[in-house]
Amino acid sequence: MSPFTLFQKDTILLDHGSGGLASQQLIKNIFLSHLDNPILASLEDSAVIEHNGGNLAFTTDSYVVDPIFFPGGDIGCLSIHGTINDLAMRGARPICLSLGLILEEGFAIEDLEKIIISIARASKETGVPVIAGDTKVVPKGKGDKIFINTSGIGTVPPDLDIASRRAQPGDIVLVSGTIADHGATILIKRNSFSLEGDFVSDTMPLHGMVTELTATCGNDIHTLRDPTRGGVATTLCEIAETAGVKITVDEEALPIKPCISVACELLGIDPLYLANEGKCLVLVAEPAAEKALQLMRSRPEGKNAAIIGKVTAGSKGRVELRTAAGGTRLVTPLTGEPLPRIC
Amino acid sequence: MSPFTLFQKDTILLDHGSGGLASQQLIKNIFLSHLDNPILASLEDSAVIEHNGGNLAFTTDSYVVDPIFFPGGDIGCLSIHGTINDLAMRGARPICLSLGLILEEGFAIEDLEKIIISIARASKETGVPVIAGDTKVVPKGKGDKIFINTSGIGTVPPDLDIASRRAQPGDIVLVSGTIADHGATILIKRNSFSLEGDFVSDTMPLHGMVTELTATCGNDIHTLRDPTRGGVATTLCEIAETAGVKITVDEEALPIKPCISVACELLGIDPLYLANEGKCLVLVAEPAAEKALQLMRSRPEGKNAAIIGKVTAGSKGRVELRTAAGGTRLVTPLTGEPLPRIC
Repeated sequence: MSPFTLFQKDTILLDHGSGGLASQQLIKNIFLSHLDNPILASLEDSAVIEHNGGNLAFTTDSYVVDPIFFPGGDIGCLSIHGTINDLAMRGARPICLSLGLILEEGFAIEDLEKIIISIARASKETGVPVIAGDTKVVPKGKGDKIFINTSGIGTVPPDLDIASRRAQPGDIVLVSGTIADHGATILIKRNSFSLEGDFVSDTMPLHGMVTELTATCGNDIHTLRDPTRGGVATTLCEIAETAGVKITVDEEALPIKPCISVACELLGIDPLYLANEGKCLVLVAEPAAEKALQLMRSRPEGKNAAIIGKVTAGSKGRVELRTAAGGTRLVTPLTGEPLPRIC
Repeated sequence: MSPFTLFQKDTILLDHGSGGLASQQLIKNIFLSHLDNPILASLEDSAVIEHNGGNLAFTTDSYVVDPIFFPGGDIGCLSIHGTINDLAMRGARPICLSLGLILEEGFAIEDLEKIIISIARASKETGVPVIAGDTKVVPKGKGDKIFINTSGIGTVPPDLDIASRRAQPGDIVLVSGTIADHGATILIKRNSFSLEGDFVSDTMPLHGMVTELTATCGNDIHTLRDPTRGGVATTLCEIAETAGVKITVDEEALPIKPCISVACELLGIDPLYLANEGKCLVLVAEPAAEKALQLMRSRPEGKNAAIIGKVTAGSKGRVELRTAAGGTRLVTPLTGEPLPRIC
């Protein structure tokens, strides 16, 4: 896509919600040009502000996933896990969530209740209560069953500073488990592809693992990001650009379930661009990398964690993939929208 | 509507988003039965939690108003004012907001930018920055132009405790200005009624006035509520029920613009049930009432403030209107949805 595409079209495209290049252009050209402040402009998974002598993390996310029920989860638990994970990606301990529902007239109350039960279970399991809520209803045909917004507040431990800008040459890049599970599962479920395999969303809260990781490695953990929309590829590009570093990823080191790998090959989709909803990228100072890896692997959330790459100083903002065939491929942010409404 | 209506129908109705009786039933039967915790169950305009030795207020609201541009404002500034006001209703000083957008494919980017400019202006004027954001896009026909969620955090001054449960016999009830302006304006604009008069939404931030009010009167201010969906009638019913008190309102004391009064009469709509987006109800200890009234009247937000009623001990949960004709009428929460998507 040409960088000028946004200005050649005068309407919102699905692509603007992809989390890729069009999203970034919309954010920079429309949102940040009017709403600019340094906290918003940092474009981290959560904002961090000083309050009452401590640091608070604050984040918001709307969930419009289609279908609303999918193998491994539903829009309800996804909306709890996703926002908890955004808080965790700044090292914050989540303390509470809000829940805003936009319901379509005619939506089955039975389905609504299933989703609320899923939200309640996720809230209970994570120990993060939903303390504020709002419900709106729009006429039939002006919405799609249910859209959910969750916002969350967390406490950042004193002196902990985890952010994309802290990625630096020498850092080791880890991923907490297999990639592309959520994106591939939604794709297969939505299109009723009859592929064999254990296709299940990875939707999962990561704050427990992150709490342990930061308690052990402290600020040796430089960057945490959960590669949701746009996948691992787009998220790494954002980190490389923000920190002004180069990131090299080893394709063979990427953990991926065989069925996901086969499905992606059959469907012609690159798993590096598919969404994950229970994984994080960890950029850690080299001396602490092995400790971080072992710690992650000792927990269920990180049992398939792997070292997948490293950060270097050359070619700022560039992400490269060392392919299995021994070549090198440039990794760019997602363009186009292969899979709308993934989360 | 019978209290059993919710269970006779198995799908979401517009009425469930009205802020009236059906909304309350949905909240109690579906949300609170699964998500119960004392903070959520208090159903105040904001949740208040202790944090780091102080109190934080937290609130969320989704905005689905139709039309998105209306006399006096648009969905953008409304989404900033509304959430700031929800924080102010607990006496909190708003400190930051999040902004979650759900855009419909095909929405004009020019209109999006107008709304973002309006949000930026409201944020600047109120001094409350938007520090976190999220944008999703849904396919054409699965949304309606733009839905906005804003969530907000505020600081509650030490020892200040403003809540519906604090309303008590002897309290004086004030309203900060003319009622029904927003609801009537949206109704007229949406239906293109050609009525003469100064129909303009009252969308306005109230935190400045509330800060002064609470700084001067402290905990003599017992309850603050902004009567949005469901209007003054429904909000007073909620307060009366929560606090277990009776509230009596003097119809002749209700400030209302003549054109709004005439329009409501012509359209057969009771202004007590129409939404306000820049007004608050203030329940204050009798000795402080006159001071509160004068303070409100000294500010632009409260220039038409008036004493409209009082709280007594009899008939808990009951709201009565002393009519202009000298009679007494029972005021009940909104049933049915006369005006969907008012905010």
